[in-house]
Amino acid sequence: MHVFLNGRCVPEAEAVVPVSDRGFLYGDGLFETIRIGRGHPFRWEAHLARLSRGAGVLRLRVPFSPGDLLAAVHQLVELNGLPDAVLRLTLTRGAGPRGYSPRGADAPTLVMALHPLPAPPAEPVRVITSSYRIVAGDPLTAVKTCSKITWVMARAEADARGVHDAVLLNTAGHLAEATASNLFWVQDGAVCTPPLQAGALDGVTRALVLELCGRLGLGVCEVDAPPSVLAGAQGVFLTGSVFGVVDVGEWDGRPVPLSPVSARIRSAVAAAQAGA
Amino acid sequence: MHVFLNGRCVPEAEAVVPVSDRGFLYGDGLFETIRIGRGHPFRWEAHLARLSRGAGVLRLRVPFSPGDLLAAVHQLVELNGLPDAVLRLTLTRGAGPRGYSPRGADAPTLVMALHPLPAPPAEPVRVITSSYRIVAGDPLTAVKTCSKITWVMARAEADARGVHDAVLLNTAGHLAEATASNLFWVQDGAVCTPPLQAGALDGVTRALVLELCGRLGLGVCEVDAPPSVLAGAQGVFLTGSVFGVVDVGEWDGRPVPLSPVSARIRSAVAAAQAGA
Repeated sequence: MHVFLNGRCVPEAEAVVPVSDRGFLYGDGLFETIRIGRGHPFRWEAHLARLSRGAGVLRLRVPFSPGDLLAAVHQLVELNGLPDAVLRLTLTRGAGPRGYSPRGADAPTLVMALHPLPAPPAEPVRVITSSYRIVAGDPLTAVKTCSKITWVMARAEADARGVHDAVLLNTAGHLAEATASNLFWVQDGAVCTPPLQAGALDGVTRALVLELCGRLGLGVCEVDAPPSVLAGAQGVFLTGSVFGVVDVGEWDGRPVPLSPVSARIRSAVAAAQAGA
Repeated sequence: MHVFLNGRCVPEAEAVVPVSDRGFLYGDGLFETIRIGRGHPFRWEAHLARLSRGAGVLRLRVPFSPGDLLAAVHQLVELNGLPDAVLRLTLTRGAGPRGYSPRGADAPTLVMALHPLPAPPAEPVRVITSSYRIVAGDPLTAVKTCSKITWVMARAEADARGVHDAVLLNTAGHLAEATASNLFWVQDGAVCTPPLQAGALDGVTRALVLELCGRLGLGVCEVDAPPSVLAGAQGVFLTGSVFGVVDVGEWDGRPVPLSPVSARIRSAVAAAQAGA
């Protein structure tokens, strides 16, 4: 496998960073997970726009133009023979002097690595509520940083229970998101999801679903509420770049009814992905 | 400079980790910052005990015994000719498959790197209140993980204001800690500090100061309170492994009176460090 590292496509064994890289030392960076279909990154502009917003928040420089990055993606797909894949793009502040201060770290690290597209989960999936909490309203939760220990440990809780994913609440006890997906539910015919201010990541597929619901004539609603709001939900589903739309069939051991609209939304997302 | 990497002391240029290391991808690891004086790590057992507690929380394996690590520290000091130094020990979950799940990442990465001991700041220092918040009561805030973007950005705020450090409040608006130091103040003759549950790191120097205050006949008090509690304080100081005890002379632009007891505490800490 070849990996893009700071301007060059190198064999995986040479894709290394110094132990003084602030991504490694402090999680001082950003990442994007992008679906590649038939050789093309899906919603590339949206991912690059989010990366750029995050770089503004973290005061990081993106050291390559979107055009150069896209050319490198195509090169990676070609070199690795992987037209259908998951791309992980990582941007860190690079190496710098010891200590939290980002002063003196002026050469960011940019890595892009392809991974085989995993098989979609057998639906509907089971989820649990994580014991870990997201900070609502934190400007650093709003961007996709590399400081993800909370999400890693939430996912480990899901692994330990043998379920697909864990849903994180925010520090107010309200619904936020799953570890690698946004959360949706259907209530009184409307498609609901936590607002970004609740700690939900501004997911590229989340935005696509909200957009597609409009086209499908479905009402959408951002709801900042505790999990009890789900008691009367007509279905729950997760959305993300890797798997698209995934129905939830069980939450904390209790059955969840299948959504009457998720199949239509999943088809619309799949069609958008196929047409990318 | 030589660096200890997974069992070997290698030249700095060879001290690299794969871009698939979960420390780099997710901040999925722990670290310790340890003062080395006359070739010996100060409070080594306390640092290793905290690392071990953190490894328990993160379900990480420490791949070397404390004795082997100590031998490696002495080798690093010798190889680099740096008997007075700052040691950064980093333990990550190592490389693994893509995604938050730690499953399949079974070979942790352990790095130890020496850095020259920086000159102490000209005291008293200036601090600001950071706009970033720490989650109180979070089991992941209680250990020293590599997911430190909040502390990095708080420190960047201090840099931007030209001051020594930034104090972080927790999500309840109460005092927690500075980015690389614990916070103390003197109130009615007692030496006060935020409790660990407020989001203060269990600092090795914090514990030493609490212990030394007992020996010096000074009362100590853990206070979970908003910054307004400092209005009547007779002095504020910071404690940490690198600089010991540092007086604060200005907070958010307002002068802070010099503590009547910090000089005694600083001397006691310095004596403990010198005798290590």
